[in-house]
Amino acid sequence: MFRLPTLRLRLLASPSSCLRRGASRQSARAEQIFKSKKDLPKTSWTSSRAIDELRASLGEDTISTDDEDLLRHGYSEWSSINIDQLPVAVAYPQSTEEVSTIAKTCQKYKIPMIPFSGGSSLEANFSAPYGGMSIDFTHMDKILSLHADDMDVVVQPSVSWMSLNEEIKDSGLFFPVDPGPSAKIGGMVGTSCSGTNAVRYGTMKDWVINLTVVLADGSIIKTRKRPRKSAAGYNLTNLFIGSEGTLGIVTEITLKLTVIPQETSVAVVTFPTIRDAAAAASKVMRAGIPVAAMEIMDDVQMGVVNKAGSTTKKWKEMPTMFFKFSGTKAGVQENVKLVKAIAKTHKSGDFEFAVDAQEQKTLWSARKESLWSMLALRREGDEVWSTDVAVPLSRLPDIIEVSKTELDSLGLFASILGHIGDGNFHESIMYNSKDPKERAAVEKCVKDMVDRALEMEGTCTGEHGIGLGKKDSLLKELGLDTVNVMKSIKGALDPHWLMNPGKIMDVPS
Amino acid sequence: MFRLPTLRLRLLASPSSCLRRGASRQSARAEQIFKSKKDLPKTSWTSSRAIDELRASLGEDTISTDDEDLLRHGYSEWSSINIDQLPVAVAYPQSTEEVSTIAKTCQKYKIPMIPFSGGSSLEANFSAPYGGMSIDFTHMDKILSLHADDMDVVVQPSVSWMSLNEEIKDSGLFFPVDPGPSAKIGGMVGTSCSGTNAVRYGTMKDWVINLTVVLADGSIIKTRKRPRKSAAGYNLTNLFIGSEGTLGIVTEITLKLTVIPQETSVAVVTFPTIRDAAAAASKVMRAGIPVAAMEIMDDVQMGVVNKAGSTTKKWKEMPTMFFKFSGTKAGVQENVKLVKAIAKTHKSGDFEFAVDAQEQKTLWSARKESLWSMLALRREGDEVWSTDVAVPLSRLPDIIEVSKTELDSLGLFASILGHIGDGNFHESIMYNSKDPKERAAVEKCVKDMVDRALEMEGTCTGEHGIGLGKKDSLLKELGLDTVNVMKSIKGALDPHWLMNPGKIMDVPS
Repeated sequence: MFRLPTLRLRLLASPSSCLRRGASRQSARAEQIFKSKKDLPKTSWTSSRAIDELRASLGEDTISTDDEDLLRHGYSEWSSINIDQLPVAVAYPQSTEEVSTIAKTCQKYKIPMIPFSGGSSLEANFSAPYGGMSIDFTHMDKILSLHADDMDVVVQPSVSWMSLNEEIKDSGLFFPVDPGPSAKIGGMVGTSCSGTNAVRYGTMKDWVINLTVVLADGSIIKTRKRPRKSAAGYNLTNLFIGSEGTLGIVTEITLKLTVIPQETSVAVVTFPTIRDAAAAASKVMRAGIPVAAMEIMDDVQMGVVNKAGSTTKKWKEMPTMFFKFSGTKAGVQENVKLVKAIAKTHKSGDFEFAVDAQEQKTLWSARKESLWSMLALRREGDEVWSTDVAVPLSRLPDIIEVSKTELDSLGLFASILGHIGDGNFHESIMYNSKDPKERAAVEKCVKDMVDRALEMEGTCTGEHGIGLGKKDSLLKELGLDTVNVMKSIKGALDPHWLMNPGKIMDVPS
Repeated sequence: MFRLPTLRLRLLASPSSCLRRGASRQSARAEQIFKSKKDLPKTSWTSSRAIDELRASLGEDTISTDDEDLLRHGYSEWSSINIDQLPVAVAYPQSTEEVSTIAKTCQKYKIPMIPFSGGSSLEANFSAPYGGMSIDFTHMDKILSLHADDMDVVVQPSVSWMSLNEEIKDSGLFFPVDPGPSAKIGGMVGTSCSGTNAVRYGTMKDWVINLTVVLADGSIIKTRKRPRKSAAGYNLTNLFIGSEGTLGIVTEITLKLTVIPQETSVAVVTFPTIRDAAAAASKVMRAGIPVAAMEIMDDVQMGVVNKAGSTTKKWKEMPTMFFKFSGTKAGVQENVKLVKAIAKTHKSGDFEFAVDAQEQKTLWSARKESLWSMLALRREGDEVWSTDVAVPLSRLPDIIEVSKTELDSLGLFASILGHIGDGNFHESIMYNSKDPKERAAVEKCVKDMVDRALEMEGTCTGEHGIGLGKKDSLLKELGLDTVNVMKSIKGALDPHWLMNPGKIMDVPS
């Protein structure tokens, strides 16, 4: 039975206004995809036993086998890759202990386990190539304890970073890692994500104090106690961060917090070419100016912002940089002055500053929602391939310039944007999914960009993770011996390869 | 044959002037220790074969079995713990490939391998409880490439952080992790160290881009390419950092660098009680004031600074805080003002600022060399037990106050000092090693402090590592299941437990 209105509502749980605007078209697309799934997995005998046992011990509602639910947990229209296989069931645990029970049962019946939180990852990180149980943390969405004097907070996986910051703002503290608006802490740990604030504050791995993890056999461990600094034994916290659920299921996270800056200022400035913008960014970093964020958007992406209409102003459709400055009043003024001077040497236009906090928020949202703004512009049958790489800072102008030329030569609607202070940028390409030639051209363009990043001693992903999509690139990036070390660790912690199998590395044959 | 003058020179490779002052007494002590080692390990048949093979393939000088060399690589007067066993040989490789050859040979003959760089660790991290081959990186002390525009540098393990900063200073960049003056990058990776700058810049794990590692079987891997940010696969870099050589031998390290601040200011201020000082430190952190460093020293430690005479001034022997401020001129002034206001509410004395760069350096050195200053004050037969813990920030005043009272009640020469902005502090206790009752009292005092830190959700070590000395505490801190995960990883990468066996966790029986 298809209940598409419900599906639509769930898909629209994103805070993006652009996504909301794309709602009616999206529901039609979802219906089409849904109907095309002819081979929804049949529940095997072992899966049925596992589901029955879990329903008996945890309650009927804990396990769903509803078709829509399976689709929503195995397919994502944001993902570069989708596969036919879906999970066979979705579990909705309420506690770490319930996750442990689920893991024990899955272990008993040898059923894959795939954690699911915000569902906004881009490399099919939560897809179910071997079927199995999707473990959705919807009901584990509590802030468990805020320790304002210790500057940390303990949360469950389904807390979103945006709502966390909203809820704790009276403490004067915030959590600075800011990926896509719909991301939740569990998935952010899984993909070792970052965002626009990374240039100032670092990435997810810098902001986690400890993790509670359910291992493949259902045992529960805590990676650390709660000091901000420790040298006690292996850094398991950072091993689980970025392991995309392949080593264990994270059920509780202690995050560091930092003090909300007194003053914030947001400015937008154009450059004649994308190379000029990238070169200016490198100089800002090299000068050690502590910008709070520094984002690049190309002419196409500025056009998307204009079309999305989320800001009142019409922007010049030129290579543009968004700057965020924060600190004390004097510090902000000083940094603005320094950055302006560098930008001028790269032929920048004038800096346009947001006039108030609301305009700052709107401007920054326009940047943060760029992917959804692009998704909202799709025509019937269109898909968007969005991917990221990172390179050493000095190589950024080169790779961005070549990649932009190659994107333009595709003749498709395609843009570059990125966290340029980290040497990290994204390509988003819209293409007709029904045209195999077009898909092949896009795939080649993406692979060429990744190869170029690797030649420049960069990485195939700065913040999206490997998922299903970049396993070959990982191998190319680090070599077989390094990937084999990862496989040894995987095998040691999950001997039956039941934790999100097929992600990061292939399951041994 | 004992060549003590040579031994003395080697032991004195530390830049500490205090250590130099202690030279004559030290050589006498070393002689005494050396003579007491009645059971220097006899080289077994397999070890002899391994040594012969390595000498044949890498050259006679690559492997030393000189008694002094063995002592220097198995014993440390700085360490809280020493054991009777020494390594059976010391290897001096010149390259990653030579380390690989050594590992292959050790693997073939099942000989433990123990990496050695600065030799300044405090928890017997490089001791040789199972004998084996100490691998000394003395000849791998090169800065391989400075990428100033990428703000990174590639170094070999025996580069010291101090000489690195000296050599690259013309680039305007520096490496901010600053443990004891004699520490070298290889060991700093091994123990996941930090130092006084950690409150501003973070710890070792935040400053390593990639590692080249020789694994137990001699294969060579690189954990990452050279981007400043990556989400590609497991974070092996951070798994090796802090693993104390138990998972592989690090032979090359790419470090992030940052821009030398325009302006630095150093100030010293007293407080009536250590609780007042600690409480002020917590408030500074909570206010988000970006101090460059914030160190606490108790009355005893200030007395040590006075006695060591490395600064011209006589300091009040009271609880004291050392502050370092850095940034732009305006930023420094602003931060000084904010910190002064907080300190005043905790009954601080007046801030005394260093008048010039030389005085800043002298003052900071007095803090950094505090352990050696204390060592220099030992009488015949004295040992110093130096250890560290870290707790959540708000618990710092409590733990420091209780620990100080307990230290005082020992009736021994004992001090507290620490990186108070990280919730991390050290105890150093001088005791008569020939008095078992005194040693037992010291041991109890240290263990009580560790237990207290654990009860406060802290860690048994903020920056020294586990080594031989804190294995029980690690188990108490994280529990058997978590330590078993570490053991699984160890077993997966080093199935014969040949890499620095007996450190962090016990070798399975």
